[in-house]
Order: sequence, then structure tokens, then C-alpha cells
Amino acid sequence: MRAVETLRKIGAEKPLVHHLTNYVTVNLVANVTLCTGALPVMAHAIEEVEEMVAAAGALVINMGTLDPPWIEAMIRAGKEANRRGIPVVFDPVGAGATNFRTRMPEKILSEVEVSAVCGNAGEIATLAGLEAEVRGVESLAGDARSAALKAARALGTTVAATGPTDYVSDGETILAVENGHPLLGRVVGSGCASTAVIGCFAAAGGGSPETVAGALAFFGRAGEVAAEKASGPGTFEPLLLDAIAALSDEPASLGSGLRIREVSLD
Amino acid sequence: MRAVETLRKIGAEKPLVHHLTNYVTVNLVANVTLCTGALPVMAHAIEEVEEMVAAAGALVINMGTLDPPWIEAMIRAGKEANRRGIPVVFDPVGAGATNFRTRMPEKILSEVEVSAVCGNAGEIATLAGLEAEVRGVESLAGDARSAALKAARALGTTVAATGPTDYVSDGETILAVENGHPLLGRVVGSGCASTAVIGCFAAAGGGSPETVAGALAFFGRAGEVAAEKASGPGTFEPLLLDAIAALSDEPASLGSGLRIREVSLD
Amino acid sequence: MRAVETLRKIGAEKPLVHHLTNYVTVNLVANVTLCTGALPVMAHAIEEVEEMVAAAGALVINMGTLDPPWIEAMIRAGKEANRRGIPVVFDPVGAGATNFRTRMPEKILSEVEVSAVCGNAGEIATLAGLEAEVRGVESLAGDARSAALKAARALGTTVAATGPTDYVSDGETILAVENGHPLLGRVVGSGCASTAVIGCFAAAGGGSPETVAGALAFFGRAGEVAAEKASGPGTFEPLLLDAIAALSDEPASLGSGLRIREVSLD
Repeated sequence: MRAVETLRKIGAEKPLVHHLTNYVTVNLVANVTLCTGALPVMAHAIEEVEEMVAAAGALVINMGTLDPPWIEAMIRAGKEANRRGIPVVFDPVGAGATNFRTRMPEKILSEVEVSAVCGNAGEIATLAGLEAEVRGVESLAGDARSAALKAARALGTTVAATGPTDYVSDGETILAVENGHPLLGRVVGSGCASTAVIGCFAAAGGGSPETVAGALAFFGRAGEVAAEKASGPGTFEPLLLDAIAALSDEPASLGSGLRIREVSLD
Repeated sequence: MRAVETLRKIGAEKPLVHHLTNYVTVNLVANVTLCTGALPVMAHAIEEVEEMVAAAGALVINMGTLDPPWIEAMIRAGKEANRRGIPVVFDPVGAGATNFRTRMPEKILSEVEVSAVCGNAGEIATLAGLEAEVRGVESLAGDARSAALKAARALGTTVAATGPTDYVSDGETILAVENGHPLLGRVVGSGCASTAVIGCFAAAGGGSPETVAGALAFFGRAGEVAAEKASGPGTFEPLLLDAIAALSDEPASLGSGLRIREVSLD
Repeated sequence: MRAVETLRKIGAEKPLVHHLTNYVTVNLVANVTLCTGALPVMAHAIEEVEEMVAAAGALVINMGTLDPPWIEAMIRAGKEANRRGIPVVFDPVGAGATNFRTRMPEKILSEVEVSAVCGNAGEIATLAGLEAEVRGVESLAGDARSAALKAARALGTTVAATGPTDYVSDGETILAVENGHPLLGRVVGSGCASTAVIGCFAAAGGGSPETVAGALAFFGRAGEVAAEKASGPGTFEPLLLDAIAALSDEPASLGSGLRIREVSLD
């Protein structure tokens, strides 16, 4: 689905987007979800994750600050989402940084079927079994295009590898998203936030490469708008939320601002 | 107590307000508490909740991201507050959204005596045993006035149901608060924040409908001031904190800006 | 190491700074770390803390919202940092407020060797075994200079006691830092944020009084710059991040703005 139509559908339906995410960027993730037009909810208790996800339009699993009880909640919620055909979006934050963070995505992906995976180049390379340099939760190097393609083939789902250019692939096509701004890289949680937008888009349009690329282009476009008035990373963050809200309130204002193109597989 | 006097008392005494709250909006809740003139503390360990609450002027229990160890901390802190006559304010976030979230307020309210309950119309309707539509932690419909009145009667305490107009009742009177701005509904945690302000006010003035309505009117007025300069929900949030701080620093500047009126019971 | 050189080294090396911190101010702490030029990571799972800290340039332990599983993670990470010679910075948030918060620093400091301790006057006085008035996590009174000196002697490490003037001592010298602005005291987490900056500085320059004082002066200077444009505590926080980022991007712009002086021991 094209981004403008997806945004209109989100605005009309106000889907619940259930996040099992980290405590570092959870507030930003919730606000980005609300500004995109969806309703965020963060319930993680084993006692309610299945019932909560059953009411959701999408589930976002973000492993930023993972520990064992959360993994159980993620898998329970993911399986229930699968049973009900609710799209699951997965952000393997820090995959490659420790053995634990490399093993856990394997565990989650072996138990839960995901509609889309979104991470930085290093995280996605790790999922594809490629060499990667991940320091903490930051990717220091890596070929995002090739990582997205290989991970999509290995996992059999849509994969987005973000960076100066974002690449989205389902293993058969690759879309490049050119929207964005360097200030996004200076705000903690911009990666989590872009995955949250993919969650909102998936609730309305599923996990196709076109929908995922649309989400990233929309988010990147909001970053471009916010950067016009920001005086640094601190003032950029509230302006980013303003821009997301303004663009999702009036999807037509995106005009021809989204820069998505198909790139060759080689 | 009237809002201007309550704010002066908070500023003079700087009461500690102990929050057992969720990890989504905890930072906003803490900053709102500090800007209102009180001192926030968020200690949740079983090992210290009772000793910490004993030093507090009020306890705020917010069940936004509930799980069993937290429920135990909430009940222990609540009982100690009761023993010491410290007001307890309760926000049943998401009551009605899952069975867990419907049962837990019952459990907490059966063990802890609360001075005031504050939630959106759907949450309060759930507590009153009425039909409600709650999606995640958002209320989609509901008659706030009737919910506040019925819940106040059922629970035997002051109840506030927030919305475009907030209603506060103790079962015998109903106060309507007209202050506020639509941007409050576009920031994650504005409900938690308004409950935090009630906590600050309760530390100085207890849980009477007048005091609770004063807190909501003050918070809503700050929203009106903040909206004048905001360019969207993102920039609104820091401006809201500025407005809360400015109005609590100079309570007289509230002038005749608080719009509270008594409404009929029928 | 002098602050300008430390900042240049941070910018060149982009060290990972591993934080085991509280969920109230974690987002601010992460953004401050990133704006200072380092890479923040917040992994707390027992399964990975040792491997994560092994990749870090410094470990910051902040006990703001402590509970037993976290204490275990802090001690494990701290011991591994010690084995590898990685500096550990410790913020005893709320020490003195409850018995638990007074005992836990003793436990952590008995198991982990720290390069620097940073807290407010009341917390540092508590560590030095002095009388202190701590309400929640706020210090209400206390002689910061004397607390820093005595705690440094008692603990055998560099100690910073923050306040209107910050004092840094290793037990043999005392440095006073005059940079700062009253708005820092109106933002929740400014203490945690200053400790985070010390963590970044320690990753590049270790825990000497000069390096720690340089971190506090840099942070205070950023507060002064931010205050010029802020209209209250809410707008101050994003401007503080902007100022930190601008000053760390161009350390030369600090000019003669850092006000550190040696004071007498008596």
C-alpha cells in the first residue's frame, strides 16, 4: 500500500499497536505511534500480553533492553499474534553486540513468524550470518543493501536495514529509501521510532516491502521537516514528533516528498 | 482547598510525592511533579517502599505497566500510607482493556484505601461496573460525568473522570472542569501527568473534590498556556512543563483562569 | 586531562559507555552520552552484562531505581570492568533516604572498585558517614565541600559532590566547579546526566579529579548556554542537549568558559 493511503487508513481506524520494547526509548516509541495516528500500548505482563495483543492491529517486538521474563512475554504475544493473523514487526536491537543478543533473535524468530524485521546495517548483517561491527547498539559499518537482501532470503520475510540510505527487501526486490537527515542519528531511539512507524503501517497495510519502505520514507521525511527548525539533537526530537503529527494529519502534504526507488539485486 | 492556596502550600513545604508508576511516562510524571513544586521519588523495591512512603506527603499508584512484583510493592506502600494517614491517589490505567487490568484495580482498592481515583472515562466506567470501550490505554467512548458519580458512590471516595470536560465527584456533588486543550490528548502520558498533579495537590490539601478539581483545572490551564506557542504535540510537551512551572512559581498568575463549576447530580 | 582534550578524544574514539541506571532518567542519560560524543548502551541482563562491559570504555552505575536483580547485574558488571581496567563511575542516588539506599552503596563499593563517585551533597555526606538531610532523591542541605573531601578519604577514590558549586576531591586536593545554572536543578535527572558525562570523560581520561571536574564544568557550561534561550525547565532540557552536542562537536568553542579552581583543604 502506498504511504499516503496507509496513513489515511491509520487515521481512520486508529489501530492499537502493542509494543514490547525497551525502557530507554519507550516514551519516544509511544509518542511516535500516537503522532502517526495509531494508539500505543506497552503492556508486558505474562498475565495479559496475549489478551492485549488480540485487540491490536500489530505487535512490535524490540529487544533493546532484553531479559528472560521479557523474552517469554515477547514469544507469547508473538505466537498469539500469529494465531490471529496480526502482523509482527521485530527490531533486533544490538544483535551482534553480545552472544546473548545474537542468540535471542534466533530464538524469537524460530518461535514467532514475523512480517517485517527492521534494524541497522550491523544488526541485520548479524541476522544474515554476515560479519558485522556492532558496538553496543550502534552499527559501525556494514553494507545495508546486501545485508537486507541476504537477511530477507535467510529469514523468508521483509527486512529493512536502516542507515544513510535505508534498504528494504523481501529477497526478490530491493527498495532504497533516500529520505532522512543526519540529526536522526544523533537522537537515541530514532531506530526504535522508525520500527514503531513500521508497526503502525503494518497494522494498516501488512509487511510488504512497499509498505515498510513507505513507513521509513514517511519517517525520514518527517526528519527532514524537523531538521529545518532544529538547533541540535535536543530540539530536533520534539520537532520530529510535530512533523510526524502534521504529516499524518494531512497525508496529502507529503506531496512528492517520499524518495523510494527500486534498486538492482546485484 | 482552593488551587492558588494549594500551590502556595506545595511551594512552601516541597512535599515528597512517591510514585509507583509505569516506565512509559515516568519521566514526564517526575518532571510534572517537580515543576508543580513537589519532590518526586520513584523507588519501587519491596525493600524500601514502606520506608520511602513514610517520608512522603502523598503516594501515587499508576498501573500503566503493571506486573505482579509491582502490585505487591503498590499494596505494601499503600497500606503503609494508610497507616500513617498519607493520601493515596490511584490511576487505573487501562482498566477494562484486559481481564488482568480489570481485576487488579479491584485487588488494589480492596487492600488500600485511596483518597482519590483519576482515570479516563472508560477506565472509570469500568471501575463503576458500567459498559466501557477501552482500547489499550485509551478510552474511546463513555459518559464521564455519570462514570465519575457512579464510581465515587461504588468506591466511597473522590473520583475524577477526565476528558474534554473533566468530572470530579465524591458521590454527593459533581464538579466540572473546563480547562484543557486538545493537544493534551496527543501527548502520551498526559493522563498520568494530571494524576501526578493530583498527587501533589493531595500532599498539600487531601483528596476532596475541590482539591482534585483544582489540580485538574491547574493542569488544564497549563495546557492552554502551552498550546499558545506549540507547533504540535512534540513541542507542546516541554512548553507544558514550562507553563506548569511558571504557574506554580506564581500562583497568582492563574488569575481567573480556572474554570470549575458545580453541576447537577441528575 | 583537560576538558577540551578529553572531548576531542571522546569524539575521535567514540567509546561505548555502559550504563546500569534507573528507568526514570534513562532516556536523558542516553541522549547526554550520545551528545557528548560517546555511544550509550543500557544492557542489564545477567546473561550479557559482563560481555557488554568488556566492550565498553567506561561503566556507569546509577542506583536511582534499585532492586535486587539490578544490584547483582551492577556488581557483576563492575567486577568485570575491574578485571579489565575499565573505569567505573558510581552515582549513589538517594543514599540516605532509606536504609536500603544507605546499605546498597556500601555493598556495591565493597565489591567494586570505582574510579569516581558523583552525587549531591546529601548523598555524598551519607557515604562519608556524615549527617545529611535527603528527601527522596533530593538533598536539602549539606556542606558539599566537606562531604566530597571526607568521602574521598573514606572511600579512597575521586568524589564529586554537586550543588550550586560542585566540589571534586581525591582526599588530597579539592577542585571547585562554578559552572551551572539554577534551571539544572529544576530538571529531573540533571544529576544522573552529569554523572553520565563523567562516564564519557572517564572513558577517555580516567577518574582523576581534573577529568571529573572538567566533565562537571563542561556540563555546567552547557547548562549556562541552554539557559539563555529556555523559557522554563521544559524547554531547557532539549536546549541542554543541543548545547552539549554543540560544545562537544567544537570543543574549542568552550574558550575560557570553564570555571574550575583549586580550593584549600581546610
